[in-house]
Amino acid sequence: MNFLEERILKDGIVKKGNVLKVDSFLNHQMDISLFEQMGEEFRRRFEQEKIEKILTIEASGIGIACIVAKYFQVPVVFAKKAKSVNLEGELYIAEVESFTHKCRNQIIVSKKYLKQGEHILIIDDFLANGCALQGLISIVNEAGATVDGIGIAIEKGFQIGGRTIRNLGYHLESLAIIDKMDDETGTITFRPQK
Amino acid sequence: MNFLEERILKDGIVKKGNVLKVDSFLNHQMDISLFEQMGEEFRRRFEQEKIEKILTIEASGIGIACIVAKYFQVPVVFAKKAKSVNLEGELYIAEVESFTHKCRNQIIVSKKYLKQGEHILIIDDFLANGCALQGLISIVNEAGATVDGIGIAIEKGFQIGGRTIRNLGYHLESLAIIDKMDDETGTITFRPQK
Repeated sequence: MNFLEERILKDGIVKKGNVLKVDSFLNHQMDISLFEQMGEEFRRRFEQEKIEKILTIEASGIGIACIVAKYFQVPVVFAKKAKSVNLEGELYIAEVESFTHKCRNQIIVSKKYLKQGEHILIIDDFLANGCALQGLISIVNEAGATVDGIGIAIEKGFQIGGRTIRNLGYHLESLAIIDKMDDETGTITFRPQK
Repeated sequence: MNFLEERILKDGIVKKGNVLKVDSFLNHQMDISLFEQMGEEFRRRFEQEKIEKILTIEASGIGIACIVAKYFQVPVVFAKKAKSVNLEGELYIAEVESFTHKCRNQIIVSKKYLKQGEHILIIDDFLANGCALQGLISIVNEAGATVDGIGIAIEKGFQIGGRTIRNLGYHLESLAIIDKMDDETGTITFRPQK
C-alpha cells in the first residue's frame, strides 16, 4: 500500500452513493506534505515524459497541481469553470457534465496559455466518470498541444472514466485506484499497483 | 521595487475600469517560482506570528496559499464559494459581494477545519474593496480562532479594502500596493514600502 492509500484508509470516510470524503486532507483542508509526496511520485511515474506545463481545473485541482509543478519546474494553468468578466480574448471552451453538482458547465482556458506543440501534464484530484478530464483533453487537443501524461490522486476504478482514458491510449497514472467501497462497513478495496 | 512589483510592471496589463490583468503569472497561468518568492517574503513579514493554519478562498487564492504554506509548515483550508453537495455537517457561512462578478455569494468553511484558538494566516491574490476578505475574517471570528496575519499579493491601494482592514487593527501585508493605474499610458504607481 502506498502513502496515499494509507492516508485514505486512515482519514477517508465512505458515504452512501459511492461518495468518498477526503476533505480533511485533499479538497477542503489540504495537507501540503502529502501533496509533496504526490509530486515526487508523479515525477517518478512520468520520468520519461518531457513536461512543459501542468493543466488543471478549479478549484480542488489547483493546490495539488501547484505543489506537483515544483517537481517538474513548470508553470500551471487552471481551467476556469465559468466565464469571468476578467477573462477576455480568445478562449478554448469545452462543455462538461458534473456528476457531483448534477449540471453542465463550460470550462475555459485562454488561448494565450496553451500553445501548439506544448507538452502537457494534466493533474486533478479525482477521476470518476471522467467528464472534467475529457473536457481538459479536448482543450489541449484543440490547442494543438499534446497530453503527455495525466496524474490523478484518487480514481474511482468502478466508474468508467479511467478505463475510457486508458483505452484511448493516454498515459494515466492514478496514485490510488479504488475498486470497491462499502459505506456500511467502511471498507475500501484498492486495485493493486506495481 | 520588489520582485512582485517588477513582475507586474513587466507582465501586468492595465485595462479600463481599474482592471489589472495578471493572468499570465498569477491567476490563470501561475508562475510557481514567483509564488515561492512570495512564500519567503510572507514568512519574513510574519516572522513574529505563530501561524497554525492558512485560510484562503477559491479559486485563485489556492495556488498561492499552497506554496506559501510550505514556508510556514501548516495546512491550508480554502473557503468554497457555493454549497457543494459533498460539503456536509456544520458550516461557517459568510455573505460576500463580488466586485468582479457583480453578485452576492456565500462563502463556506466546514466547522471541522477551523477550531477555537487556532492562529490563522489569511492569504489571497487580490485586495480591492475587501468584501471577500471581510467574509473570511468573519468566519475566523465565528470559529473563535484569531487572524494573526493577512497576506495579499496585490492590493489596489486606491480602493477602500486595505485601509478598512488596517483601521480595524489587523496585520495586513500586501506585497505590491498600487496607488494609481492609467490604462491610457499603461503606467502603474506603487506605494513605497519599507
